[in-house]
Amino acid sequence: MTAVDDFIAAGRLDVDRVLDELVPDAATEPRRLHEAVRWSLFSGGKRIRPAIVFAAGGTFGAERGLLVAAAAAIEMIHTYSLIHDDLPAMDDDDLRRGRATCHKQFGEATAILAGDVLQALAFKAIARDDSIAESDRLRLISLIAEASGTPSGMVAGQQLDLDAEGSVLSIEAIERIHSFKTGALISAAAVSGAIIGGGDMDELKAIALYAGKLGLLFQITDDLLDVTQQTETLGKTAGKDAAAAKATYPGHYGIDQTRAMALGIRNEACGALRSLKRDTQLLTALADLILNRTR
Amino acid sequence: MTAVDDFIAAGRLDVDRVLDELVPDAATEPRRLHEAVRWSLFSGGKRIRPAIVFAAGGTFGAERGLLVAAAAAIEMIHTYSLIHDDLPAMDDDDLRRGRATCHKQFGEATAILAGDVLQALAFKAIARDDSIAESDRLRLISLIAEASGTPSGMVAGQQLDLDAEGSVLSIEAIERIHSFKTGALISAAAVSGAIIGGGDMDELKAIALYAGKLGLLFQITDDLLDVTQQTETLGKTAGKDAAAAKATYPGHYGIDQTRAMALGIRNEACGALRSLKRDTQLLTALADLILNRTR
Repeated sequence: MTAVDDFIAAGRLDVDRVLDELVPDAATEPRRLHEAVRWSLFSGGKRIRPAIVFAAGGTFGAERGLLVAAAAAIEMIHTYSLIHDDLPAMDDDDLRRGRATCHKQFGEATAILAGDVLQALAFKAIARDDSIAESDRLRLISLIAEASGTPSGMVAGQQLDLDAEGSVLSIEAIERIHSFKTGALISAAAVSGAIIGGGDMDELKAIALYAGKLGLLFQITDDLLDVTQQTETLGKTAGKDAAAAKATYPGHYGIDQTRAMALGIRNEACGALRSLKRDTQLLTALADLILNRTR
Repeated sequence: MTAVDDFIAAGRLDVDRVLDELVPDAATEPRRLHEAVRWSLFSGGKRIRPAIVFAAGGTFGAERGLLVAAAAAIEMIHTYSLIHDDLPAMDDDDLRRGRATCHKQFGEATAILAGDVLQALAFKAIARDDSIAESDRLRLISLIAEASGTPSGMVAGQQLDLDAEGSVLSIEAIERIHSFKTGALISAAAVSGAIIGGGDMDELKAIALYAGKLGLLFQITDDLLDVTQQTETLGKTAGKDAAAAKATYPGHYGIDQTRAMALGIRNEACGALRSLKRDTQLLTALADLILNRTR
């Protein structure tokens, strides 16, 4: 285990503990709903977004306890998007993180509701955490709602992705889809940490630039894994993007050139951190981790 | 037109203007998403929940301008729930307010996303309205997230309703489903108005009691309309609840006894207002309006 692995593992424990408190247990009615939420929320996710909140917050000196609500909220938003994305009407995926997707396990209706309720739980978690200053809580809610919404957030990106199926897209169009669909929430994770840590406007800008690149890197490596890995290793159905004629980097540039691009974007991400007068070692290590990820 | 009709019509204009500002226009990409959101949001809805926010807020002296964000947010949450409720995996309805449901018009994937994004827009609208005190904005977000979530909010009620399909339920079980599925958000509308108007804890309690009854009344009259009206008048498919063997009041008590119950609940709602040292004429008129509604 490297230092960044330890950091992520510790963060995972913290965020999982808080998520467990925030979601009604599976014995609380309606049980099927809470079972479905927990099925998807506690399914061995890597907790990359919480790690980004913790790393960015830690860079600005925020204590972990102040950061967990934002980390948990962003993970809940991410999980709701996976549940809805896997639905038959969307990507129609049977497998996620190596096991049945929410709708395969609990039915479509409950999966739709599980996603819906995760979004409500996410915003409630931040609104109610009175260890965070009121003005900061409102900034976080506003930021995360924007990043997960429209016209330049996660849902907008998913719609653009749907609209693009079967078309040949320019690389600019592909990047736009990725930056909305994946980048916006990853960026919000980093900026949330920096807000809670009291970063000033210039620092938030640098963090947002770093995180935008990180999000792009995440998507590119995701595309690479989709074409280079087997379903078993990946824990979700491999080769789906290509089969659906989705816009991907390897599909556009080929695998070797996409790998070179990934390295370039990692360097841009880390370059954006240079203006910060802080120890940015963790943020750099996170970028390396994403560059080299194997699942 | 009665005074309460005028009040609702004026409120509808105000909330529609704000909703129009809060949702990207249909020319903004992704267009299909924004068209779908607007299709469902501006489809001739009665804006009962905004009217409740305005009436409760007005009772405590809040100006309309302070109330519109909460009214719009609650209407967006309500609309997202209708979009998702109509999906094939849920109620599978083709018709809503006299025209095609969102998924019939735009496809299931876009309908799922339209509902998702309305929820994000709702919380963002409140978080960003700096005419409302910061602490009040957080209370509203927390309240509305609770009322639309789980274990005693709207989504929980929808899950219980799904779980109950095909079963014969006790009247207590029916009431619990209704109070979660419909009552919680209606109650949140009234309490939101009272919070913004600066109501104290006792006043909020009285308003919550009134609004809980109002929500129940709303559901009972909804059930009555479902069995007594034609599809054309109703603007949605009539007789669906009975066809799906859903738990309803008329199904349990018969039409005449259900009508008598509705009157009794209207009286309980208005009785809850007696402790308020305020002019409660509008709130009483709203209860009468719901009691006597024909669509």
